[in-house]
Amino acid sequence: MQSHMEEVLQHLLPASDIAPQRLHQAMRYAVLGGGKRVRPLLAFAAGEVSGAQQSRVEVVAAGVEMIHVYSLVHDDMPCMDDDSLRRGKPTCHVEYDEPTALLVGDSLQSLAFQLLAEFRLADDPLEQLEMVRFLAAASGSRGMAGGQAIDLDAVGKPLTLTELEFMHIHKTGALIRASVMLGARCGDRLDATSLERLDHFAKRIGLAFQVVDDILDAESSTATLGKTAGKDAEQNKPTYVSLMDVEKARAFAQELRFDAMESLDVFGDKARRLRELADFIVFRQF
Amino acid sequence: MQSHMEEVLQHLLPASDIAPQRLHQAMRYAVLGGGKRVRPLLAFAAGEVSGAQQSRVEVVAAGVEMIHVYSLVHDDMPCMDDDSLRRGKPTCHVEYDEPTALLVGDSLQSLAFQLLAEFRLADDPLEQLEMVRFLAAASGSRGMAGGQAIDLDAVGKPLTLTELEFMHIHKTGALIRASVMLGARCGDRLDATSLERLDHFAKRIGLAFQVVDDILDAESSTATLGKTAGKDAEQNKPTYVSLMDVEKARAFAQELRFDAMESLDVFGDKARRLRELADFIVFRQF
Repeated sequence: MQSHMEEVLQHLLPASDIAPQRLHQAMRYAVLGGGKRVRPLLAFAAGEVSGAQQSRVEVVAAGVEMIHVYSLVHDDMPCMDDDSLRRGKPTCHVEYDEPTALLVGDSLQSLAFQLLAEFRLADDPLEQLEMVRFLAAASGSRGMAGGQAIDLDAVGKPLTLTELEFMHIHKTGALIRASVMLGARCGDRLDATSLERLDHFAKRIGLAFQVVDDILDAESSTATLGKTAGKDAEQNKPTYVSLMDVEKARAFAQELRFDAMESLDVFGDKARRLRELADFIVFRQF
Repeated sequence: MQSHMEEVLQHLLPASDIAPQRLHQAMRYAVLGGGKRVRPLLAFAAGEVSGAQQSRVEVVAAGVEMIHVYSLVHDDMPCMDDDSLRRGKPTCHVEYDEPTALLVGDSLQSLAFQLLAEFRLADDPLEQLEMVRFLAAASGSRGMAGGQAIDLDAVGKPLTLTELEFMHIHKTGALIRASVMLGARCGDRLDATSLERLDHFAKRIGLAFQVVDDILDAESSTATLGKTAGKDAEQNKPTYVSLMDVEKARAFAQELRFDAMESLDVFGDKARRLRELADFIVFRQF
């Protein structure tokens, strides 16, 4: 699947010989050849629940991944986290330069919305407009970008668990929800209860993803992680590990996984891949 | 009109008491209380050609203005033009901080697409999806952001007039075209020839806008301009003035205005406001 997704992204990104060449090369550098592709995987798995056409989910998966990568490129910049390693490679502003990294992020965001509007993703175009709206809301100041702002404000401050959760619901949760909901919306129309259950799954697994990220950041080496490890503690950022300790954070991730799985019961075998992904997210080692 | 647009933007931006408050305050700071609102004005004027509903054009006008402001906020950042004054006020990263300015730009871009997908802008939702696609393409690496990349590459290099035009067609031209085309598309469906004429008008007037900008930058004071004047020459950036001299640049702007006006003939009195705007763009003093 990851290699298929790589081909899809290769195809949907502007070719590196189209002007402005350096920008397009940098966009391809940032997006291609790395990453776990968790959001595309979630979109495909959610698409199985509604019997979605592969070609539609591919566009949604590429869109959410481009939004994700744009956020990584901007977050890594010197004025934000100032990170030099991402997905095992020099970060975009290190490999290219800061202005290019800024424009790579900006252009990937535009491209995501261009793709979501360009291809036919739902039988009903009003449904597709709702998909565009959902992704935009998940990406913006009341979603992912807002979560990043809350994160910046939190450096060096004591946060409660509730505040930490509020941050993550925005910072990573919103886009993970969008991956699941947009993937599912590419297929047969689901009733409100089914959509609500998928959304609950996405919320729980989004939070679990972040809890596990915090555990891995605290315990792994930079080599295993492919990005700079131990950064959170170094920057005195509140994490699930710093607020709960590792054992309690592990138990919390299990609890979230259980709750997420339960909300999939109604879908039977159609949700098999969503269950596998939930396990991957909670049990992953990198 | 500008004061009505201000109200529209006030209303469509997230309130400053919604979390994350500081980000929302900074978004409002960047967007509200300044600017010529040329793109919204173009959208409204183009909407008159197709008899568009005011409420629809308001959303399009807000969307293009948010894209424009996001690009200003990012362009002003230290890693780009490093400018401290914009629309007569401290730039966003000076008034707030760099990470906030980065997120303000990112969030304004998301918000533009959210608005364009959220409100009903065309009778046919497929037409509205095409509007979203058009704005995204105009904003991205083959539009505005790409123009910025070409501009960065051009600093200190000798450019031909053709290369300079190629840059501006992207950097400012694409979004000006989007303002006109999306404004017009909010109304009755126009035939292909009419759309082509409007597009030609938008291309010519977009270029004229840039030529006049170059003249004003070379001749005005910082106080009149509301942004740092003389920056282009100081950074050794190629401009129409440096490549043509002021007199030839003025004649070129007139030629573009004439060509733009001619393409409006077919619309008769419906294009009155577009003509007024073309005059404003070419004859403005700031």
